[in-house]
Amino acid sequence: MAWGDIVSGMSQVSLAREYAEKLDADDPLSGFRDRFALDDPSLVYLNGNSLGALPRATLRRLEDVIREEWGTALARSWDHWVDLPGRAGDVVGRLTGAAPGQVLVADNTTVNLYKLACAALDARPGRRAIVTDQDNFPSDRYVLEGIAAQRGARLRMLNTDIDQGLDPGAVRATVDEDTALVSLSHVAYRSGALADMAAITEIVHQAGALMLWDLCHSVGAVPVELDRCDVDLAVGCTYKYLNAGPGAPAFLYVSARLREVLQQPIWGWFSQRDQFAMGPRYDPAAGVAKFMTGTPSIPGTAAVEESALLLLEAGLDPMRTKSLRLTSYLIELGDTWLEPLGCALATPRDGSRRGGHVTYRHPRAERLVELLADANIITDYRTPDRLRFGLSPLTTRFTDVWTAVTVTRDIIETERENHG
Amino acid sequence: MAWGDIVSGMSQVSLAREYAEKLDADDPLSGFRDRFALDDPSLVYLNGNSLGALPRATLRRLEDVIREEWGTALARSWDHWVDLPGRAGDVVGRLTGAAPGQVLVADNTTVNLYKLACAALDARPGRRAIVTDQDNFPSDRYVLEGIAAQRGARLRMLNTDIDQGLDPGAVRATVDEDTALVSLSHVAYRSGALADMAAITEIVHQAGALMLWDLCHSVGAVPVELDRCDVDLAVGCTYKYLNAGPGAPAFLYVSARLREVLQQPIWGWFSQRDQFAMGPRYDPAAGVAKFMTGTPSIPGTAAVEESALLLLEAGLDPMRTKSLRLTSYLIELGDTWLEPLGCALATPRDGSRRGGHVTYRHPRAERLVELLADANIITDYRTPDRLRFGLSPLTTRFTDVWTAVTVTRDIIETERENHG
Repeated sequence: MAWGDIVSGMSQVSLAREYAEKLDADDPLSGFRDRFALDDPSLVYLNGNSLGALPRATLRRLEDVIREEWGTALARSWDHWVDLPGRAGDVVGRLTGAAPGQVLVADNTTVNLYKLACAALDARPGRRAIVTDQDNFPSDRYVLEGIAAQRGARLRMLNTDIDQGLDPGAVRATVDEDTALVSLSHVAYRSGALADMAAITEIVHQAGALMLWDLCHSVGAVPVELDRCDVDLAVGCTYKYLNAGPGAPAFLYVSARLREVLQQPIWGWFSQRDQFAMGPRYDPAAGVAKFMTGTPSIPGTAAVEESALLLLEAGLDPMRTKSLRLTSYLIELGDTWLEPLGCALATPRDGSRRGGHVTYRHPRAERLVELLADANIITDYRTPDRLRFGLSPLTTRFTDVWTAVTVTRDIIETERENHG
Repeated sequence: MAWGDIVSGMSQVSLAREYAEKLDADDPLSGFRDRFALDDPSLVYLNGNSLGALPRATLRRLEDVIREEWGTALARSWDHWVDLPGRAGDVVGRLTGAAPGQVLVADNTTVNLYKLACAALDARPGRRAIVTDQDNFPSDRYVLEGIAAQRGARLRMLNTDIDQGLDPGAVRATVDEDTALVSLSHVAYRSGALADMAAITEIVHQAGALMLWDLCHSVGAVPVELDRCDVDLAVGCTYKYLNAGPGAPAFLYVSARLREVLQQPIWGWFSQRDQFAMGPRYDPAAGVAKFMTGTPSIPGTAAVEESALLLLEAGLDPMRTKSLRLTSYLIELGDTWLEPLGCALATPRDGSRRGGHVTYRHPRAERLVELLADANIITDYRTPDRLRFGLSPLTTRFTDVWTAVTVTRDIIETERENHG
């Protein structure tokens, strides 16, 4: 990995705005910003880790799906819609290091977590423990808590450092011969800490358990290598760095090793082998289509495919390179201007251990996010005292980072004077 | 009910096209067709029971949601998006006779069936049987088959007449003290037969079981009175007569009587009481929001709301009146022109016992549907030998019916000559 070079190459960071302008001028991905419908020139949008911006190509694709495919062609379009979830899944597979036939775009992340976690427990019938971590995203924890309650399984919580993320040693110390499933997030939603997918998956396999990764905060922000890491199962949403729109369908990955073995619990007609035969008994489809439920959102799935293609056009390595430069630059500025004002970095300082967002602790974080929004700088608050800056590599400029940090500094200073 | 008058008032049906033109001229709902993006003047679209046409208001609403709410306002829109599933649900509630706070727009029909059927079984812990009918829609049967297999419950199949639909007597003869749940379709997908919701629900309650109605083929086509019929649970899709687009989110209904008692199995963050507190344990929301899972499709949910408002503007009684006139007219023409050519009506002749589509049996039904499509008349084939004419009351003209029946007649006659 050459990521260390990226960070060290930025060691003479200047605090001047002109330095940010030079970084933008030198940015090989700078042209991609115009591919998005970000038409407010004064907006600094650092929340693409919550809801990604609208790609113009996705807007056109949605207009085409809605006006032409639905409005004009009507039900005749089902001829090519019916296998869209698998086609879009293969495109998302290229973003996540998954060979074709293992990824499906359907349902939301929570429903996909439910389906795959239930399938995993069924595949490890003698084992009664599910392992996750206390700082995993709430929906992940809740859905696993529900499954454990319904099946008389035990939910074991890894102790993790909320700012530094998952320690493979903690996973090794927790999994045992009773563990059926370990379900963790690749990038932590609060801190942005990036887990060691390969090492943790291997530890989980050594214990004979199955590994389910949640890629919501990593897909489109960091390289993901599901096949190479020998991952069993994964899920992820598409409305963050993937830019497919609010509530666009999520995706799921089932390794080809397990695809024919596992069975998911929600037996719908879109997972039926010969769907339109309307047969009397459920007979699950071969391949990843088995993990469908009912009728998928067609505009949403088309948006996922289109937005994923844009990321592939930009290239995963250039995006990761820019992402690390953006986050490193923010941390450098933060060291000078935010830490002295009571902000504390709540994200790993080591670039190889973080994803695409940078988080600071501050006692008045929630208020700071509101005041930044008043200045047309959109960030995000997370409990209890976290201010998140999401730096989506295709839409964020280095000058956006400079503006956000300097305005945050000014707001804290003004607030101090007012409340001092 | 004055529906008998509607049918008898059409007793002097003339076979001339001019009669259809007069019916269109006298149709108080004829102006609503221009509210849809049906721009091909030669198209006869009789498949709105599979995918409803695109309302122009819904197109505008989707453009607004995608361009403005997503593209411009970005994540700030979550302030009003977050409770959209309940707001849209209340609008769908007005279409289904449900007081506010009982309907939610979310997920797809299959996932909603799964959630509500699991909740119902949990609420009847001593009982081990689920009752459905052999001709229920495949996804309904499959999802119930899956739940039965996973929980060691028994799936009991009602014997029904595929053309005439559900007989309350058959339900009475099947439910007993072991029945936890009865799950049936209000309008049968193949025949269009309309079930007696009030009578069957009462029979099910007398046995101490819970009643779950699938409204996919009835909502927007026939009046639905969930509260008045004392229904426990219901689900339905929104892309048929509701015209919300391919794969738009489905809805679910949970009676206020049961809302606080039942618990669904997929514990997601959108059903959490204080969602953004990101608390350590699952604590289900009060009210129908408890039946959410993860992040809902925002464009899809907005489309449901907008399309449902159009139906409410037209009015449920005028739509039912026109629907009965359309189906009666088609059957009258079919008696003269289709039955003598080997077509057999596979839909109840009694208007009060059918929904919005009319089905014929014909040995070459699948081929007829293809040949009709070649003539720009879109109908639908269903196994094994059914030709369905879907007559969506806001978009179908009486002249469309006349054209469809005469062209069907001509095609059968030509086919006979060619294959005679």
